[in-house]
Amino acid sequence: MAQWVFAFGNGSAQGKAEMRALLGGKGANLAEMSNLGLPVPPGFTVTTEVCTYFYAHGGRYPANLKAAVDTAMDRIGELMGARFGDPKQPLLVSVRSGARASMPGMMDTVLNLGLNAETAEGLAALTGDARFAYDSYRRFVQMYANVVLGLEHGLFEEILETEKETKGIELDTELDADDLKRIASLFKRQVEKDTGDPFPENVHDQLWGAIGAVFGSWQSARAKTYRRLHNIPEEWGTAVNVQAMVFGNRGNGSATGVAFTRDPSTGEKILYGEFLINAQGEDVVAGIRTPQTVSKIVRERQKSRHPSMEEALPQAYAELKGICDRLEAHYRDMQDVEFTVQDGRLFMLQTRSGKRTAEAALKIAVDMVQEGLIDRNTAISRIDPGALDQLLHPTLDADAPKELIATGLAASPGAATGEVVFTADEAERLASDGRAVILVRAETSPEDIHGMHAAKGILTARGGMTSHAAVVARGMGRPCVSGAGSVKIDVAAGSMACGPVTIRRGEKITIDGATGQVFKGAVEMRQPELTGDFGTLMSWADSIRRLKVRTNADTPTDAATARRFGAEGIGLCRTEHMFFNAERIIAVRQMILADNEGERRAALAKLLPMQRGDFVEIFRTMEGLPVTIRLLDPPLHEFLPQNEDEIADVARAAGGTPAKLRARAIALHESNPMLGHRGCRLGITYPEIYEMQARAIFEAALEVEKSGNTPVQLEIMIPLVGFRSELEFLKTRIEAVAASIEKERGRRPAYLIGTMIELPRAALRAADIAQTAEFFSFGTNDLTQTALGLSRDDAGTFLTEYLSKHLIGKDPFVSIDREGVGELVQIAAERGRSARPGLKLGICGEHGGDPDSIRFCHQAGLDYVSCSPFRVPVARLAAAQAALSATAPETD
Amino acid sequence: MAQWVFAFGNGSAQGKAEMRALLGGKGANLAEMSNLGLPVPPGFTVTTEVCTYFYAHGGRYPANLKAAVDTAMDRIGELMGARFGDPKQPLLVSVRSGARASMPGMMDTVLNLGLNAETAEGLAALTGDARFAYDSYRRFVQMYANVVLGLEHGLFEEILETEKETKGIELDTELDADDLKRIASLFKRQVEKDTGDPFPENVHDQLWGAIGAVFGSWQSARAKTYRRLHNIPEEWGTAVNVQAMVFGNRGNGSATGVAFTRDPSTGEKILYGEFLINAQGEDVVAGIRTPQTVSKIVRERQKSRHPSMEEALPQAYAELKGICDRLEAHYRDMQDVEFTVQDGRLFMLQTRSGKRTAEAALKIAVDMVQEGLIDRNTAISRIDPGALDQLLHPTLDADAPKELIATGLAASPGAATGEVVFTADEAERLASDGRAVILVRAETSPEDIHGMHAAKGILTARGGMTSHAAVVARGMGRPCVSGAGSVKIDVAAGSMACGPVTIRRGEKITIDGATGQVFKGAVEMRQPELTGDFGTLMSWADSIRRLKVRTNADTPTDAATARRFGAEGIGLCRTEHMFFNAERIIAVRQMILADNEGERRAALAKLLPMQRGDFVEIFRTMEGLPVTIRLLDPPLHEFLPQNEDEIADVARAAGGTPAKLRARAIALHESNPMLGHRGCRLGITYPEIYEMQARAIFEAALEVEKSGNTPVQLEIMIPLVGFRSELEFLKTRIEAVAASIEKERGRRPAYLIGTMIELPRAALRAADIAQTAEFFSFGTNDLTQTALGLSRDDAGTFLTEYLSKHLIGKDPFVSIDREGVGELVQIAAERGRSARPGLKLGICGEHGGDPDSIRFCHQAGLDYVSCSPFRVPVARLAAAQAALSATAPETD
Repeated sequence: MAQWVFAFGNGSAQGKAEMRALLGGKGANLAEMSNLGLPVPPGFTVTTEVCTYFYAHGGRYPANLKAAVDTAMDRIGELMGARFGDPKQPLLVSVRSGARASMPGMMDTVLNLGLNAETAEGLAALTGDARFAYDSYRRFVQMYANVVLGLEHGLFEEILETEKETKGIELDTELDADDLKRIASLFKRQVEKDTGDPFPENVHDQLWGAIGAVFGSWQSARAKTYRRLHNIPEEWGTAVNVQAMVFGNRGNGSATGVAFTRDPSTGEKILYGEFLINAQGEDVVAGIRTPQTVSKIVRERQKSRHPSMEEALPQAYAELKGICDRLEAHYRDMQDVEFTVQDGRLFMLQTRSGKRTAEAALKIAVDMVQEGLIDRNTAISRIDPGALDQLLHPTLDADAPKELIATGLAASPGAATGEVVFTADEAERLASDGRAVILVRAETSPEDIHGMHAAKGILTARGGMTSHAAVVARGMGRPCVSGAGSVKIDVAAGSMACGPVTIRRGEKITIDGATGQVFKGAVEMRQPELTGDFGTLMSWADSIRRLKVRTNADTPTDAATARRFGAEGIGLCRTEHMFFNAERIIAVRQMILADNEGERRAALAKLLPMQRGDFVEIFRTMEGLPVTIRLLDPPLHEFLPQNEDEIADVARAAGGTPAKLRARAIALHESNPMLGHRGCRLGITYPEIYEMQARAIFEAALEVEKSGNTPVQLEIMIPLVGFRSELEFLKTRIEAVAASIEKERGRRPAYLIGTMIELPRAALRAADIAQTAEFFSFGTNDLTQTALGLSRDDAGTFLTEYLSKHLIGKDPFVSIDREGVGELVQIAAERGRSARPGLKLGICGEHGGDPDSIRFCHQAGLDYVSCSPFRVPVARLAAAQAALSATAPETD
Repeated sequence: MAQWVFAFGNGSAQGKAEMRALLGGKGANLAEMSNLGLPVPPGFTVTTEVCTYFYAHGGRYPANLKAAVDTAMDRIGELMGARFGDPKQPLLVSVRSGARASMPGMMDTVLNLGLNAETAEGLAALTGDARFAYDSYRRFVQMYANVVLGLEHGLFEEILETEKETKGIELDTELDADDLKRIASLFKRQVEKDTGDPFPENVHDQLWGAIGAVFGSWQSARAKTYRRLHNIPEEWGTAVNVQAMVFGNRGNGSATGVAFTRDPSTGEKILYGEFLINAQGEDVVAGIRTPQTVSKIVRERQKSRHPSMEEALPQAYAELKGICDRLEAHYRDMQDVEFTVQDGRLFMLQTRSGKRTAEAALKIAVDMVQEGLIDRNTAISRIDPGALDQLLHPTLDADAPKELIATGLAASPGAATGEVVFTADEAERLASDGRAVILVRAETSPEDIHGMHAAKGILTARGGMTSHAAVVARGMGRPCVSGAGSVKIDVAAGSMACGPVTIRRGEKITIDGATGQVFKGAVEMRQPELTGDFGTLMSWADSIRRLKVRTNADTPTDAATARRFGAEGIGLCRTEHMFFNAERIIAVRQMILADNEGERRAALAKLLPMQRGDFVEIFRTMEGLPVTIRLLDPPLHEFLPQNEDEIADVARAAGGTPAKLRARAIALHESNPMLGHRGCRLGITYPEIYEMQARAIFEAALEVEKSGNTPVQLEIMIPLVGFRSELEFLKTRIEAVAASIEKERGRRPAYLIGTMIELPRAALRAADIAQTAEFFSFGTNDLTQTALGLSRDDAGTFLTEYLSKHLIGKDPFVSIDREGVGELVQIAAERGRSARPGLKLGICGEHGGDPDSIRFCHQAGLDYVSCSPFRVPVARLAAAQAALSATAPETD
C-alpha cells in the first residue's frame, strides 16, 4: 500500500532529496535538511500521488489518508510540546504547495493555521503576548480567506483601514490586542457574508480546507497555462507540506530572513542576504521596513547604518553560516535559503538552488571546481549558454542615470552609444572619420549593409525579431533594437521623434539590444571580459565537445572576431554581401542588365579582382582553417534599385536607360522570390557567374599560398540544390575552371565541392546527391521555410498568435523544429552517409547558435555547427553540454 | 558461347518476336515473319550483345563474329542463288540498324551494298538492264558515302546537277546507263578526295564498314540525347540487320509501298496504304511521284485517277491482304508494314505496331475485342489516356479553311469560337444574352473568374502553361491559348492587333487550345462523342480500376459536367472562388477591411446565405456522393483591388476610404504569399471566417436533406496544416458550430473533418495529424512547391532551361516528382494509416489528372484521385491501366 504521508524534522525524515517526484521540490529538501540534522521545524509532506488520486477519483482522498495525517500531526505536536487545537498548548502550522518543478499559479502559503477564538486566547496566555496572538490570528483569517477561500485581499485591507481611521491612527503597529481581536471578528463576519458559510473554527476543517485548496490550485487556469508552456505533464501533481510554525516576530531575539550562499550578482563567495528582526516572512516581502544585510561585509560595502545579522545576532549568524556551508557542500551548488530565528534559536524553512546572473553562474561554477565541490562537467552543465550571450557584449551600467525615450524589440544583444544618422552612406562616412554612429532607419534593406557594418548599433522603427535588420545585426554582432514603433523618423528633416523628445542628426543616443531600450545621450557601460573565468570554462567546454564550432562570416573583420571567440573555421561565407559594396554594385547591375552572355562576362570580369581580394583577406585571417564559401544565392532583383531616383542614378552609372532598368526589374519580379530564380538556379541559367566566383576563389587561394600563408581548407558550396543533376552540372563547370587555372599557373588549390541541404527534396534525395557532393551543410533557415511552408519574412503576423495560443511551443526559426525539420536533417544525414561514408555534415542556419538546436545537431551526428561570430562561445558551451547530456534522457 | 548472329528468311528463323532485347525491334519482327512462313528476303541480325561487346572492348568485335557473318552471308547467297561479290551472280544486301526501341539519331539504311565496278557490270549483264544496274550503283555510292562515311549529301547532288547541265537535261530519268556509270566514278573520286581513302571496292570491306557505322551511331550525339530524354539505358545497344535486296524498280511488275492494316486516322478496318510502281523505297519518301493507294475503296473515296494496287497488281494485293490479316491475328494489333513487289513477287520488309490517332486507337481497341482478337484488359492498356483528352473537346475540322492570325501556348484543350471581349464583365453580360464570347486579356487574375466562366474560351497575351489563365481554364474545361505574345491588346480602343490583322470587340475569332492557334472568324468544328466506343471502353475501365475518380469542382455547372464524365464525387470544392463573384466581393472586402471581430462577423453574415445557396445547389447535383469542401485558402490580399481606380470604386462600395484600403493592402502585402498568411492560418487568426463557412455547409446539407434529396457525404477539409494543434484548434470550433446547429434545429448533418497534406512537415507528422484528421487529401501542387522550393508562378523562367538541359525529365507540376514529392506522399500514407487504419486518402492537386501520377497514386495505395471535370475520363482510364500494370515492373 502506498505511503501517502512522509514526516520530517527532529534530525531525521522519511523522505530525502532524491524523492523530488513524490514529495515535490520543497518537501524533498525539507526532508534532506532534516536528515542532515539541521534545525528544521517538524512537519510532513502529503505526496504528489495523493494529488493524482484526488483527480482520478473525483476529488476524493485515499481511505487511509486521514489517519496518516492525524498521526503525523500528533508527531509534530509531540516534538513541539503542543497539540493541534489545544487551547492550552496550541500547535500552529503552515501549509504550502510544493510541486516537482517550481510553478507559479499554484497556491502559495497559509501561515498560523490552527488558530481560532480559543487557541488564539490560549496562545496569548501561553506567550504572555496578547497582541502577538491576535495579530497572528487576524493575519491567519485574512490569509486563509484569500488563499483558501478565494476572497479578495482588498476587502480585508478596507476593514483594517476603517478601523484605523475610526481609532484615528495611521500605522498597523499602533493597533493593540483588543483592536486586533475585534478586527479578526470583523474579518470572519466578512467571510461569512461573502461565502455564506461561517469561517471554520474547527482546526481540522482548517487543515483539510488548506490541503484541498493546494490540490485544487493544480488545475487553476494559471497553473495549466504554465504547465502547457513549460511541457510539465499534468500527471505529475503537487505535494502539500504541513510544518510547525516558528515565529520570527517574538521580540528582538527573533528574526526572519533569506540568504544566498554566494552573491547572486557577482558569484563572490560571501553570505548574501537580508533579514528583519521581530518580523514574519511576509514583512520582508511587504517592504514596510527596510531589511538589513545578513553579513557584515555586505553592510560595510553598502554603507548601511543598520546592523547586519552577523553583528545583531552573532550566534544565530554563526549557526546560519555553518549551515549554509554544509548545504553548499552537500548540494554542491549555491543555495537560496529561508530561515527564522525564534527567541535566538535558528530554524531552516527552505533551501533550493539559487538563481543567479550569467556572470555569477560563471564565477560560481569555476570557483566550485577549484574548491573541489564539483567537477568540470558539472560546471559546464550549470551555465545557461543563452545567458552567456550577455557576457560577450558591452552592457549598460545598471546604476548609471538614464533617460528612456523608446522601447522596441531586443533584436541583437549588446549596448552601443553613438551619433544618430539616418542613412547608410552617412553612417559609413562618419564612421570612416572614427566617429561612433547609431544607424536609425524605418527598416533596413540589403543596400544598408555597409552602413550597418559601419555603425556601432542599429535602431529600426519597423520589423520583428527576424526582420532584415535583426538578422543581419545578430550576424554582425551589432547591437540592434528593432520595431520601436513609437519612433517617428523624418529623414528629410534629419530628426526623429520619440514621444515628446526629438533627437536630431548628430545627437547621441544609447541603445540596449538586450532589453530593447533606447536612451537619450550616452550611458555608462561595462565592457565584456573574455579571459579569466570565461576563458577557463571555455577551455573545459572545448575539451569535452565533439561538435566543431565554425562561424558565418562574410568579411575579414567578422572572421577575425569569430576567431577571437574561438571559431574553428568558416561554415558559411556568403558571397553576395560582397556585391552590395557601393563601388561594386555598379558592376553587379551591369551584369544584371546585360543583354547577352558576352556583356555579362564583361561585367563579371570587373567583379573578379574585387571578389578575389575579399577572399585573399579572409583566407589570410583564417590561417589554414576550413572555409566554406557559398556561391551567389539571392535572386538578382535584390541588387536592383527600388525607387525612381535610384533608378535614374543607377541607369547613369551602369550605362543603361531608366526604362530598360525598370523593364528588367519587372521581368525579374517574382511572386514568391524565396521559391524562385535563386541559388543554383542562377548558376545554371548564368554559368558564367559561378565560373567567375570559382576563379576568384581559386586565384585567391593560390595567391595566399604563394605569399607563404597556410592554405585554407577550401569548401565550395552550391546553394538550393534539389536535384543531383543540378550539382553535377555546376560541379563539372567549377572543375573546368580549376583545370584551366592549373593550365595557366601550373597548379590548382585543393578543394571540396558540396551543397546546402535546404530543400525537403534534397534531404530525401541525400543518398543520390551525396554521390556528387563532398560535404553537406544544412541551411535550416530555408529548410524550415520550405518544410513548414512558412515565410520567415511574413510569419510575424500570425506566428505570435500561434505562440500565444500555444499551437506551437517555440518559434521554429529560433529553435529547430525537431519533429519536422529535424527528421529531414536526420534522414539526410543517414542517407548521405550511406552513400558516402564519413560525409562531412554541418549546419549554417541561424539555428547553429541556438543551444537547443545545437543539442539536436550533436544527437543527429553532425560534424560542426556554424553561427554568427558573437554566438561562437555560446555554441562551444552548448556543444559541450550536448556531449555531456548525450547519454541522459531527453527532457524537453 | 554466345550466338552473335541470328539468320532469318525462307520460312524460318533462329530468332522470334520475343527476342526484341537481343535482336532489336526490326530484327525480331523479321524473324517472326519468317517463322510465320511469310515471304521475307533472307538475311540475318547481328545481336545487340555485339554492340555491348564492341563498346566494352574498345571497338573490337568478338573473335568468332566474322566467321558467323560469313556463314550467314553464304546462306543468303544460297537462298537467293547468288554470291556476295560474285560478278556473275552478285548478291546485294541492305544494312540497317535496329535497336530495342525505335530511336531517331541511329544510322538508318544502306541499300544495294555489294556493288562495285565488277558486280555492277555483272548486275547489268544478269538483268539485261544496264541503266538499272548503274543507277543502283551510283545510289549505293552516294548513300554509303553519306551514311557510313559521313560526307555531305549535297556534294553528290552537285555532281549530279553539273552532269545534267553539261548534258543539257533536267530529269534524272533522262540520264542513261553510261551517264550513271560516269557519275558513279565521279562520286567515288569525290569520296577519295574528301576522306583521303579510295571508296571500298571490296564488298566485305563495304559490309564491315556499314556494320561498324551502325554500332558507331549508337554513341552519336543525337542518339545519346534521345536516350537521356527517354530513359533508354546505354547498355541496351543496337542490333544490325543485313538482308538480301529485292527490287521494286525492275519494271511495271515491280513496286514498293507501305500499308496500315486499318485506317490510322479513324480505325476503320480497311487496308490503308500507298505504293509506287517501278520504284525503290526512297522514291516513296522523296515525293517525286504521287503514290497510289493500296486498296480500291480508299482510291474511290479519294476520287483518285491513279489505279490502286488492288487494281494494278491484284495478285500481289491479294497476297498482301492475306498477310496483313495474318499479321494482325498474330500480333493482335494494327500493323504498319513495308513491302516490295519484284517482278510480281511480294516480299515483306518490315512489320510493327502502327501509330494511330486517339480516335483510331479507341475504335481499333474496341473492335478487336469484339473480333475476339484481344481481351478487354489489352484494349484498355492500348489507349494513351493523355491522348483521350482530345476526344473530350470539340476539335477544329482539319479540312475547313482557316486564317491563322496568332500562335500561343496550347494551355487548355478544345476549340471555341466567339465574339472577342476584353473584360470579364463584358464577357458575363454578353454570355447572359446567350452570345458566345472569347475573353481576351493581357493576363487573367482571380477577379476575372466570372468572365472566364461565362466565356467559351480564353486567350491571353502573357503567361505560361501554369499561368492563372491556363490553370483555371483547364480546371473549368474552357479552351485556352495563353502567352500569345504577338497579340497586342488595346482595351481602351476595344481592339487587338495580331500582326497586320486587327480584330475589334465583337468580331469573331476561333481558338484551338490543343495547338495554341488563333484564327480569324469562325472555323468548322467536330463535336466530341461520349457514347459508342468511348462509352464501351470507359465501362470496361471502370470494372477494372481500384482507384475512385472524383472531380475538382467549385460550381454546380462544373459538378454536373464532371458527373456526366463519370466523376464519383467532389474531391476538392474550393470555397474562395465563390467569393470573387461581383456581388459578393464587396462583402468579402468589408470583412477584410473590418477593424475588429464584430465588424468582421457582420460582413460574414452577409456572405453566409450566398455560400449556403452555392452549397445547396452543389449538394443537389451530387446526389449523395462524397463532397470534400476546402475552407478558405488564399491570402486575403488576393481579394483586394489592384489599381487606383478600382481602389476608389471599392472604397465607395465597401464603405471605407481609399487611404484605409491602401493601408490595409500594404499591411497584407507579403514577400512570399505562397508561404504566408493563408490556409488554416487564416482560420486560426480569424476563426469567425471558418465558422461562417462551416455553418453555411451544415445548413445547406440540412436544407437538401429536408427537401428530400439524398444527403451528400460531407467532408470538411482544412488547408495548409503543418501541426496537429492547428487542426485540433479548428476542429473544435467546427464541432461547436455543428453543436449549435443541432441545438437550433434539432439535428446536425453527418460529416468528417480532414486535412490537406501539402506541406512536407504535415507528411512527416502524418501519424500525429491522423489522430485528429478523419481523412487526408494530398495537395500535390503546394507539396511540390514546398518540397522542391519551387514557386509554380516563377519557375517558368528557368524550368524550361532545366528541361532543355535535361537536368529534369518532366515538369514536376505536370507529372508528380516520384522521388521527392512521391516519397512524402508514401510516408504520409503509411504513417497516417498506422495511426488510423483505413484512413481515407486522396489527391486533389493538378496531378490527379495526369496518367503517370495516377499510376503512382494507385501504387501508393490512395483511395481516389480528384481532377478537373474534363480530365475525369482520362483519370478513369489511367486508373484502370494502373490496376492492370500493378503487377508489371515499373518501366519509366
